[in-house]
Amino acid sequence: MMRYPVLVPDLPTKEQLLPWLAKIDSNRWYTNFGPLVQEFESKLARLLSLDTAYLATVSSGTAALELALLSYDLPKNSCVLVPSFSFPATATSVKRAGLCPVLTDVDPETWTLTPEIAYQVLEKNSCSMVMPVAAFGCPLPIETWDKFNSDTGIPVLIDAAASFGSQAIGTRCSIAFSFHGTKAFGIGEGGLVVAKSADFIKKIRQLCNFGFDGGVIARCGCNAKMSEYHAAVGLAQYSRWNGIVKQRQSLLQIYKHLLKNTGIEISFQQTPERYIPALLPILIPFSNSLSTVIDSLTDHGIQTRCWYSPPLHKHPAFIGDKTIPPDGKAYLPVTENLSNYLLGLPFHSLLEEKDIVYICDVLSMSLNGKK
Amino acid sequence: MMRYPVLVPDLPTKEQLLPWLAKIDSNRWYTNFGPLVQEFESKLARLLSLDTAYLATVSSGTAALELALLSYDLPKNSCVLVPSFSFPATATSVKRAGLCPVLTDVDPETWTLTPEIAYQVLEKNSCSMVMPVAAFGCPLPIETWDKFNSDTGIPVLIDAAASFGSQAIGTRCSIAFSFHGTKAFGIGEGGLVVAKSADFIKKIRQLCNFGFDGGVIARCGCNAKMSEYHAAVGLAQYSRWNGIVKQRQSLLQIYKHLLKNTGIEISFQQTPERYIPALLPILIPFSNSLSTVIDSLTDHGIQTRCWYSPPLHKHPAFIGDKTIPPDGKAYLPVTENLSNYLLGLPFHSLLEEKDIVYICDVLSMSLNGKK
Repeated sequence: MMRYPVLVPDLPTKEQLLPWLAKIDSNRWYTNFGPLVQEFESKLARLLSLDTAYLATVSSGTAALELALLSYDLPKNSCVLVPSFSFPATATSVKRAGLCPVLTDVDPETWTLTPEIAYQVLEKNSCSMVMPVAAFGCPLPIETWDKFNSDTGIPVLIDAAASFGSQAIGTRCSIAFSFHGTKAFGIGEGGLVVAKSADFIKKIRQLCNFGFDGGVIARCGCNAKMSEYHAAVGLAQYSRWNGIVKQRQSLLQIYKHLLKNTGIEISFQQTPERYIPALLPILIPFSNSLSTVIDSLTDHGIQTRCWYSPPLHKHPAFIGDKTIPPDGKAYLPVTENLSNYLLGLPFHSLLEEKDIVYICDVLSMSLNGKK
Repeated sequence: MMRYPVLVPDLPTKEQLLPWLAKIDSNRWYTNFGPLVQEFESKLARLLSLDTAYLATVSSGTAALELALLSYDLPKNSCVLVPSFSFPATATSVKRAGLCPVLTDVDPETWTLTPEIAYQVLEKNSCSMVMPVAAFGCPLPIETWDKFNSDTGIPVLIDAAASFGSQAIGTRCSIAFSFHGTKAFGIGEGGLVVAKSADFIKKIRQLCNFGFDGGVIARCGCNAKMSEYHAAVGLAQYSRWNGIVKQRQSLLQIYKHLLKNTGIEISFQQTPERYIPALLPILIPFSNSLSTVIDSLTDHGIQTRCWYSPPLHKHPAFIGDKTIPPDGKAYLPVTENLSNYLLGLPFHSLLEEKDIVYICDVLSMSLNGKK
């Protein structure tokens, strides 16, 4: 293990879990929409200022995506517009829901699929659905996406896997969040679907429980229920949430301040002023070689990660899928650049200011061509 | 809640979980094939006298079925022979894997799909796969199914959801187990795929992790990984397993002894002498009305359950699927009888002998037409 790992999960300790485990012991209820899942959903609803009828916990962020896609009841093989710059689950969930991903580019500033890009693609191509991704936790402009849906009638599912707590809910889009151990609100494995439609959420609950509706299966679902154990972790994590948010925001400020002081042209993802960063990706100057920089950081015990490399359109499973550059000219140039120059730096709650100073010093040297 | 619930899960207490939770705290590893999942898999392998290359834990028994079905790489819409007398997940997993369930009857003694029935159906119908179910934990004759596979070349996946610890492994079939909270080896949510093929198990591991194979997605999978928390419950449950097995076997003996003493013609599922009962289903005499008996037991605080009612061929989701009676004459008569006369009695570790005496007394009165 390297001295500065890129990611260290920050989850509740056993002491913090104990009161909730005591409840499980006395309830003797371990899954199937138990009392802890219900309490966790109530707390999440409070955090999002929503009625609990508008959200459903599930077993993972990927299950949240897949079940939300199924709940739109689109005809088989309908096209879903998806940014190529994302984690593979964005596109695997589309295919597993019996739909076809259509891969396109992202905006060079926010690194996300914007409504502008979607409109450009839709001018010459038809898609039954759009699934923008809140990359690295950067929340998407919900009013703009709500307006897109209202203007076009095309359903929008936001893959907000890393964006719980930052992503606003709006009124017309559905949103899938992940509580995977690596996320800011980590509980091990878990996911959440949010939509301002009680009918939609009811479908999610049925589909995550085999498809049961009044004792019979009307439509085939899977088993994607959140267990009481993961709800226990969620409830303990809920109490730690404000602290986690503050610490992540403070770490990002320190990083940004130090990286700007290097005088090197490092680019950051354009995000709202206040949000909850999930990771720390930076874009190094195109004059540098990413692999040389990575080697140099590795030599100093600093682990890095290249998101998302390869981008979706280069995975064997998606090579046969349609790829549509918004301008019709180049081959997803922004996504290609990001996958060639994006560097993920260590970002987690065990980092102290001195660690970040060291990491930025090493990075600065390396970008200046010094070993 | 009724005084005698039909089912009370028996899982480890918080004190029994603590040593494992301490390990999670120090590992800071929460999912993605972590050290506790690896240790749990090692212990399961020891219990089954297998190499760990021949098994993979997943997030649920249903995920185990679905990923095992996918791993056979059958052409889309291939037919899979399935007993109609089963829990819906048996057939939902077939459909979700892009295959077509063909529903048939079960044997009147073992209440399972036997190789004899499969041969009968296959005489006039072609199926690409057979998926017999180890109903209520009753293990299937693995040598006979291995021989069936060896003779016909047709792959066999055993849905042994409730049969962990009883179902022998053999050499040619794949087997899916569930660790759902209601199972004898309950851990909340969890599943296991076993197959004497390291390649097959490697596919399961890839498919439960989005389909990743060497950093890229070659084939779309889902997220069905077992988390470290569920592995912790599994490891604690492993230490309690011998006690659980003995107690369940003893409860069954007491029940059988008392029920036989009633002098009423109650039928039991035909099982091997020694196995680990998952539930306690009995078949009441056809001269009785099941609903009258249920009402009478309910009046005495005794909860019951009717497995599997409705049978699969009567669920809206499967009504369009092929149903093939083995003799070509009647309409799944055994399955129909079972769903009309099978009564699930309370069966769990909180039951004492005096409780069973009471339950059998009430049942006896009720079957004799007394209130």
